[in-house]
Amino acid sequence: MSPGGGALTVTGLRELPEVHPGSDLAALIAAALAAMHLALESGDILVVAQKIVSKAEGRLVDLKGVVPGERARELAAIVRKDPRLVELILSECTEVVRARPDVLIVRHRLGFVMANAGIDRSNVTAGAGAEWVLLLPTDPDGSAEGLRTALAARCAVAPGVIISDSFGRPWRRGVVNIALGAAGIPSLLDRRGERDRAGRRLEVTQVALGDALAAAAGIVMGEAAEGIPAALIRGYATPAGAGHAAGVCAARALIRPLEEDLFR
Amino acid sequence: MSPGGGALTVTGLRELPEVHPGSDLAALIAAALAAMHLALESGDILVVAQKIVSKAEGRLVDLKGVVPGERARELAAIVRKDPRLVELILSECTEVVRARPDVLIVRHRLGFVMANAGIDRSNVTAGAGAEWVLLLPTDPDGSAEGLRTALAARCAVAPGVIISDSFGRPWRRGVVNIALGAAGIPSLLDRRGERDRAGRRLEVTQVALGDALAAAAGIVMGEAAEGIPAALIRGYATPAGAGHAAGVCAARALIRPLEEDLFR
Repeated sequence: MSPGGGALTVTGLRELPEVHPGSDLAALIAAALAAMHLALESGDILVVAQKIVSKAEGRLVDLKGVVPGERARELAAIVRKDPRLVELILSECTEVVRARPDVLIVRHRLGFVMANAGIDRSNVTAGAGAEWVLLLPTDPDGSAEGLRTALAARCAVAPGVIISDSFGRPWRRGVVNIALGAAGIPSLLDRRGERDRAGRRLEVTQVALGDALAAAAGIVMGEAAEGIPAALIRGYATPAGAGHAAGVCAARALIRPLEEDLFR
Repeated sequence: MSPGGGALTVTGLRELPEVHPGSDLAALIAAALAAMHLALESGDILVVAQKIVSKAEGRLVDLKGVVPGERARELAAIVRKDPRLVELILSECTEVVRARPDVLIVRHRLGFVMANAGIDRSNVTAGAGAEWVLLLPTDPDGSAEGLRTALAARCAVAPGVIISDSFGRPWRRGVVNIALGAAGIPSLLDRRGERDRAGRRLEVTQVALGDALAAAAGIVMGEAAEGIPAALIRGYATPAGAGHAAGVCAARALIRPLEEDLFR
């Protein structure tokens, strides 16, 4: 027997080819769906790894062209990282949150508190002699919205789109995927005013749905060599009885504002 | 068309009845699965909300019997919470991490950094005049192992079991579910030594699979009146080519040790 109706399904898009700068992600995703005999349906959500969005958008920098300044060299000595990489990280962030050997946690100028400003060396194919690294998309919510629109034009259905990235957490080991950008699906469900079975107001009022969807997709996408850079989530239904559950789609709603930060 | 083979499915156990102190959770879950025409298969994972595990284990305390001490009364004035609740929170924790109006983040004696030591007022049916609150299970990994064993005895298959709870995050809004306890499924995947497509060592070496599975289940379980307190996850496969991916099952492996905490 198999799980019946009402189940959420998470399917990795195994047929997605290597992405290059300038690649048309919507076209590649539509082709990968077709190769798996999947057609987008209303309510479908596509979770796409930040890496391929950044790559398609050409957010590659060759470390060989980066000259580290004095601050980057000093910080690099503390965190034991490549001074050129640290230079790039500093140029992407507004604040160094923690710097310890092997750890550089910063506030990205988009607001994310994350390791290395999200700059990644892995999974970027090296060109002849170049040392490419990947920066975050300039506007992840905008990238998600663009992908949603482009997919709607190809598939006649506008899916929810989440751009995901793996984040560490201060008090928990291991990374989980979170929503860096989103469109067409509520990233943050606001459930203030709802009541529990006993009629009491809910103590938990805001649910990070975008992050949960990204984490779910991360289970099939993986991190390593076998990494599948996109997944289709089907069967998500807005909570029952939640006509009053307002939602904000843009993933920037998931970023806690600076003035609420108790851990600077 | 529907998602083909290789998909992960997440199914809420809608038929689970109200749980009471002393309830046989394995029996209730087995009955709920049967009512949905589901039989446990090898590789299946059950995610169960902390609330029903705590309730079945009788971890209820009547606030009416709690007398707040001086420290609890002082702290309660700062955080604007019931002094009796604060007394209980203090008795469950080893350290107050942050105390601000409406915020009390502590290190639970099990190691979790969390709001209110995980003590919950909602969804607990009030008895005659009593004000029940629910504490975390004494040993969530042990609870998961016990449930796994009891389900194996009933269903001839030993599922992975995760006990989940919703956690806030310091730099992100909204809660997501994490793994409070686990058995029979690697909570923390250790991927050191694996390489990416370009042959480089992975920068991300530890994956919080238990937390991702809990988050995925949380999407169908919900938080509110319609809350479904358990979900079945089917189709999870250990990463391909990851014969060297060692895993630790107990969810306590997900707790970052005190000496690695950069945000005390």
